[in-house]
Amino acid sequence: MKIWHNPDLVSHARHLPELRSGKLTPRDLLERCIAHIEAREKTVKAFVTMNLDAARKAADASGKRWKAGRPLSPLDGCPVGIKDIIATADFPTQMNSPAFKGWQSGQDAACVHALRKAGAVIPGKMVTTEFAIGYSGPTTNPFDPKRTPGGSSSGSAAAVGAGMLPVALGTQTQASTLRPASFNGAVGFKPTLGSLHMAGIHPLSSTCDHLGFIGATLEDVWHTASQISLQVGAPGYGFLNGAADVPPAPEQPRTLVRLYTKGWSEIDAATETAFEATVEHLQKRGVKIVSKHTDPAVAALETALDADVEGALDIVAYELKWPYSDYVARFGKQIGERIHGLLERADKMSPADYVALLETRRRVQAHTRAVLAQNGANAYLTLASSGPAILGHEYTGSRTFLVYGSWLGFPAFSLPLLDIGGLPCGVQLLGADHTDGGLCGTARWVMQTCAD
Amino acid sequence: MKIWHNPDLVSHARHLPELRSGKLTPRDLLERCIAHIEAREKTVKAFVTMNLDAARKAADASGKRWKAGRPLSPLDGCPVGIKDIIATADFPTQMNSPAFKGWQSGQDAACVHALRKAGAVIPGKMVTTEFAIGYSGPTTNPFDPKRTPGGSSSGSAAAVGAGMLPVALGTQTQASTLRPASFNGAVGFKPTLGSLHMAGIHPLSSTCDHLGFIGATLEDVWHTASQISLQVGAPGYGFLNGAADVPPAPEQPRTLVRLYTKGWSEIDAATETAFEATVEHLQKRGVKIVSKHTDPAVAALETALDADVEGALDIVAYELKWPYSDYVARFGKQIGERIHGLLERADKMSPADYVALLETRRRVQAHTRAVLAQNGANAYLTLASSGPAILGHEYTGSRTFLVYGSWLGFPAFSLPLLDIGGLPCGVQLLGADHTDGGLCGTARWVMQTCAD
Repeated sequence: MKIWHNPDLVSHARHLPELRSGKLTPRDLLERCIAHIEAREKTVKAFVTMNLDAARKAADASGKRWKAGRPLSPLDGCPVGIKDIIATADFPTQMNSPAFKGWQSGQDAACVHALRKAGAVIPGKMVTTEFAIGYSGPTTNPFDPKRTPGGSSSGSAAAVGAGMLPVALGTQTQASTLRPASFNGAVGFKPTLGSLHMAGIHPLSSTCDHLGFIGATLEDVWHTASQISLQVGAPGYGFLNGAADVPPAPEQPRTLVRLYTKGWSEIDAATETAFEATVEHLQKRGVKIVSKHTDPAVAALETALDADVEGALDIVAYELKWPYSDYVARFGKQIGERIHGLLERADKMSPADYVALLETRRRVQAHTRAVLAQNGANAYLTLASSGPAILGHEYTGSRTFLVYGSWLGFPAFSLPLLDIGGLPCGVQLLGADHTDGGLCGTARWVMQTCAD
Repeated sequence: MKIWHNPDLVSHARHLPELRSGKLTPRDLLERCIAHIEAREKTVKAFVTMNLDAARKAADASGKRWKAGRPLSPLDGCPVGIKDIIATADFPTQMNSPAFKGWQSGQDAACVHALRKAGAVIPGKMVTTEFAIGYSGPTTNPFDPKRTPGGSSSGSAAAVGAGMLPVALGTQTQASTLRPASFNGAVGFKPTLGSLHMAGIHPLSSTCDHLGFIGATLEDVWHTASQISLQVGAPGYGFLNGAADVPPAPEQPRTLVRLYTKGWSEIDAATETAFEATVEHLQKRGVKIVSKHTDPAVAALETALDADVEGALDIVAYELKWPYSDYVARFGKQIGERIHGLLERADKMSPADYVALLETRRRVQAHTRAVLAQNGANAYLTLASSGPAILGHEYTGSRTFLVYGSWLGFPAFSLPLLDIGGLPCGVQLLGADHTDGGLCGTARWVMQTCAD
């Protein structure tokens, strides 16, 4: 099986033995990233703001800690890019909106504060679409500048794909982390809703907004998510399932439930062929694959998911009444058309409509958990996007394959496994809520097995 | 029965018939408030910032809407003070902290945005203790300037008690709305956790922070809370139970469960006598009173409440790691000692400790609901503070009677019923979560019955 390979990727996690032994310093890794930035940023345009001098200083300070045998965490010295809707004390946070041009939050978001406590180096802010839902930014796809990098975490994913960063923070309300991860040949991870601290992340929809991670390897994203959990926790739930200094060990899943859902009608033949080859490979290695063709309960779940998932956008619309109706009142046409349209959609909804949508979601969450449990399955298996990155820059691609996980608040990974005519495309693993650690173990096994 | 009476109170809700008929304008009501501000603010010091010219303009605009028969809501034209940890686009938000002197949020909190949409007039920002938990502000008690107004919503409550405002927003993480309401002879209301939009309210502890209301009458607080719910909803739950343009009708409760809990050892004889008189009055009017003396299940609940309520402060400590560990890193001793102490407490806790505290809380929530249900009772009945306002300004008073409701996230009212030697003291009604509307009906009946 031919799988996607990108020699430019820079991993921090893979170099931990050399960082410990002193064979490599955080500054060495940062300079590899900077070499890629110098070579490619002019075309890729992943960064909004950047301070490489400060990053070099921070990397050197980290180097002293590693040398003394006292790193603050496994993430110490790791460069982490921050999506530009996440507040930082040192850089402006501009949301790709003229209304927030030059805006300074004056403080770090909880996740950024946690990263600094863990010793991470923050070289800059990454391009987002407008407020993570509206107009696209200038970023291009590192594997073909005529194509979209995906969105809304466009800069975060393109920078990782281009080897400019080992890992970057994104967010996902519908498809905004896993879609660009898929299009840029990076690992994407969206943890269970509520398991990471969201304060200081500019909101779209509180019950759909997730902090997300895009990285060179599974270990890079897991270390980053874990440190945020370990350093600041999460109000009301407490922690990310499985968060620890060492990622969960790879573990072969007994059963995976393959989902078709309606995205399947969108994909091209090459993507389908590549995905089928992956499924066959996993079956050959002993993984039982269940699907609607073998289990009527899966067919019934797909019907429920597709019938009700449109309500996800209604939830988003209703929840973005604040702050966006205030923004529209104050900034008018500086706020993009899509947001105006969603507010109009929200105005047609009553609180009772919204409450009914929450109730429907609870029902489908239970259904989605139950089908996994009935099959003794570890996760759902499907695509992370409807094929590779599409041509053009305005449209960031279909969200069809990803909106289920965002709506349900369940954890999902995008694994950069498929090579579709020289472009990457991700395979998605979607688990039950608060099984993030086990899902990471499954994902690590899938990555290893497909690379064999 | 002698009950507390304050002729200075200015209600908006009570004047709705005259606002509708045109006998009274919002400007008339505002001028009554301004007369009290001019007479008393120099001593009471309830406001941090104030813009009466803008308030007059807004009241006049509201007057036009009432005249045209098209008020935006029953709250149209009502002056509402905003606690100075709640973001406003027009005033700075300064948290009573030198670290935030002059700080401008640049936008309205969700609740403030909702108030403006409902036509409310916002004359200024109200004194808070430092970040709603630390050092006291300059506010004095309107009934004795040598006494505390209570805190942390000090200015909000003192302004209402002094007739400067019909209603003001407060917040409550432990006792910060109902305690000052009690000390200032105002109605206090803390709705069910999560039933109102909290965005733009500076956080202490996400799972204990509540938006609170302090007003001249029950109807004033209910209108204010309802409009916030109706205009912007609340992510994840949807609405305030019972929110509507018209408050729930007064309804006699069949049974109330009287709670002693450990605050009872703190109170003085005069407070005890006055409270007992209220209980007897309610019994005479046909309300069945259950207590630990008549029901062993109530005794068991009190034991559970008192055994576990200390964990409430651990939850607060753990949740204030962000943003306060960042503030301490950046502002050092500009951040008060109490916050430093709570962060040290948090540093001794593991995520597992925090998760265990959340689990304990869930257990006690279920227990607290169950004892009401078993007795067919509408609410718990107890004091809202350990007597009237105490002498001095540094200490804002005991939180013992109020911390249960904040910890559980259950709705509670403080009703200004007791007159303790010329000072007010509140009676507390505490209900099960998401029974706010019914609890308001019970509270209205209790107020009416005690005034008979």
